[in-house]
Amino acid sequence: MLNIRRQLKENGKQKPDFNNLGFGTQFTDHMFIMDYTDGKGWHDPRIVPYQPITLDPSAMVFHYGQEMFEGMKAYKTEDKRILLFRPEKNIKRTNITNDRLCIPQVNEDDMLQAIKELVSVEKNWIPDAPGTSLYIRPFIIATDPFLGVRASNTYKFMIITCPVGAYYKGGINPVKIWVETEYVRAVKGGVGYAKTGGNYAASIKAQMNAKERGYAQVLWLDGVERKYVEEVGTMNVFFKINGEVITPSLEGSILPGVTRDSVIELLKSWDVPVTERKLSIDEIYEAAEKGTLEEAFGTGTAAVISPIGELNYNNKVVTINDEKIGTLSQKIYDTVTGIQTGHIQDEFSWTVTVD
Amino acid sequence: MLNIRRQLKENGKQKPDFNNLGFGTQFTDHMFIMDYTDGKGWHDPRIVPYQPITLDPSAMVFHYGQEMFEGMKAYKTEDKRILLFRPEKNIKRTNITNDRLCIPQVNEDDMLQAIKELVSVEKNWIPDAPGTSLYIRPFIIATDPFLGVRASNTYKFMIITCPVGAYYKGGINPVKIWVETEYVRAVKGGVGYAKTGGNYAASIKAQMNAKERGYAQVLWLDGVERKYVEEVGTMNVFFKINGEVITPSLEGSILPGVTRDSVIELLKSWDVPVTERKLSIDEIYEAAEKGTLEEAFGTGTAAVISPIGELNYNNKVVTINDEKIGTLSQKIYDTVTGIQTGHIQDEFSWTVTVD
Repeated sequence: MLNIRRQLKENGKQKPDFNNLGFGTQFTDHMFIMDYTDGKGWHDPRIVPYQPITLDPSAMVFHYGQEMFEGMKAYKTEDKRILLFRPEKNIKRTNITNDRLCIPQVNEDDMLQAIKELVSVEKNWIPDAPGTSLYIRPFIIATDPFLGVRASNTYKFMIITCPVGAYYKGGINPVKIWVETEYVRAVKGGVGYAKTGGNYAASIKAQMNAKERGYAQVLWLDGVERKYVEEVGTMNVFFKINGEVITPSLEGSILPGVTRDSVIELLKSWDVPVTERKLSIDEIYEAAEKGTLEEAFGTGTAAVISPIGELNYNNKVVTINDEKIGTLSQKIYDTVTGIQTGHIQDEFSWTVTVD
Repeated sequence: MLNIRRQLKENGKQKPDFNNLGFGTQFTDHMFIMDYTDGKGWHDPRIVPYQPITLDPSAMVFHYGQEMFEGMKAYKTEDKRILLFRPEKNIKRTNITNDRLCIPQVNEDDMLQAIKELVSVEKNWIPDAPGTSLYIRPFIIATDPFLGVRASNTYKFMIITCPVGAYYKGGINPVKIWVETEYVRAVKGGVGYAKTGGNYAASIKAQMNAKERGYAQVLWLDGVERKYVEEVGTMNVFFKINGEVITPSLEGSILPGVTRDSVIELLKSWDVPVTERKLSIDEIYEAAEKGTLEEAFGTGTAAVISPIGELNYNNKVVTINDEKIGTLSQKIYDTVTGIQTGHIQDEFSWTVTVD
């Protein structure tokens, strides 16, 4: 159990218009910090006013990208309870990422406590309009002022939070996706399964190119054979072909998404066939030609479900379900968001209440 | 031409013992900074006292690794001139990295001017004992306080410098190298050719594992076929087999090192056969068995030449040149360092004088 020191602001800043929230720009009044020093471990956990970080210009995070983050949300129910969605999954993944990046492990109970206490302090920042939530961003950065390449001996673990608006305003519209053949997100043996900055930095160029071509995001292919689908943008990806839902198996280059896992569990509970396996872009295109490509969607914390309406692979275009959201995609979306916000009974014990 | 504002310290801090310098821990009195804002471009170039950076916790560099760096050195000659070594190569590579990471381009002349002015301001920090130099670290970080994944609209370009000691104290000793078969540094389509944090963060775990096994560094194999050599630790790598010097060709996953390029040019000028091509670890082991693996070494700014004395690939060990530095490796080392420090005439016009 952490003894979290609190230094709270007397008067919080003015809150933004909760009916007109964006994503990731307006932060709450406080943040959580905890420091790590070799030999001493994680220490001085504290909730303090949201404030800048001051680091030496040689701090390792600026040079060698030794950093990790997580993303999750707190939801306010109609009866004003505060729910987290499967936080233990994000916490376990934190330590999987940390292991790959040589960042020290975090005590799982401590991390959950820190998240809960910060969310509780910021409870008035949690919007309650449909689709809104409080986004929670835990992250760790390497802080040694040293230019040699090695694991840092000091770190900062922080949690910042921001109220976020509905991802979909006015209905879910499927997006057009560019199948990326030049750039690669990750490869087995690399850091693709870890939630670390380098994966995202590497993805920006392809994302920008796709935007310029009029596509919302890219579909990543594997880095070895360049034919198996991996992720879509920064989301996991699912295809429904001839009644079977298929998502790429986790083989080292794919992020093990919490929403991905939840969708698989939901589908199993509904007796919808769901398979984790390698899925080639050719198989997807063959299904489209045969008329058996029924639905396709990305999954992630931000959007929950992001239906794919069109794919462009080497300038061959296929549309999916007449570019409308599929029945199953909609049902998954409604169920996951219903559980997250307390509208649907949580048979899976996925939600965790913040007191 | 930049108009670099100067805010210099009246009294510098006490300099460290120049006969007992490490690497990357003691920084000079000043640093260079320049800011970037979309629409305004790079602006406010200044040389100011070395000081911490203050950033919002949501600054993109902490989350998505949008960052780049360069590494180069300034040398003091016996007659007290200050030399840079092929700075235009580092500057061109800066923009190649920036392009891949979606960081705005830097004007090449401006960057050279900034390096020269800062080195000139810090001229008393350049040690002159054999093997010592002033290490120069330009770097760029993404600073938008925003948690969406996209290219930042604001950046900081900074240059920090530190006096560094001789890499080899008491002779060059070849190192033992672990041929890495589990982890991968980079893959074609990724960011391997760019000098960005994510490549280094991804490399730390394999490096730590090698150290624990008693090896100084890892030899990276390609991420696709897992059989072609790519780099050694954070250096490029060369093998001399039966009189021919071979280094992996640049095909997207390998950093185009300045020392690598210089070694190739030197060998050509000496009429030593030198080839850039794919080189498999099996070919290296076959050469070792036949007795034709004559020399092997890494190249980089820090060590210039780092000879390899032993390789361990799947627990098959070969030693190279009786674990002594090879004749050619030594000649390359002496020539490159001789040119860098003004002891050998610079026939290649590689050095640039700082006034």
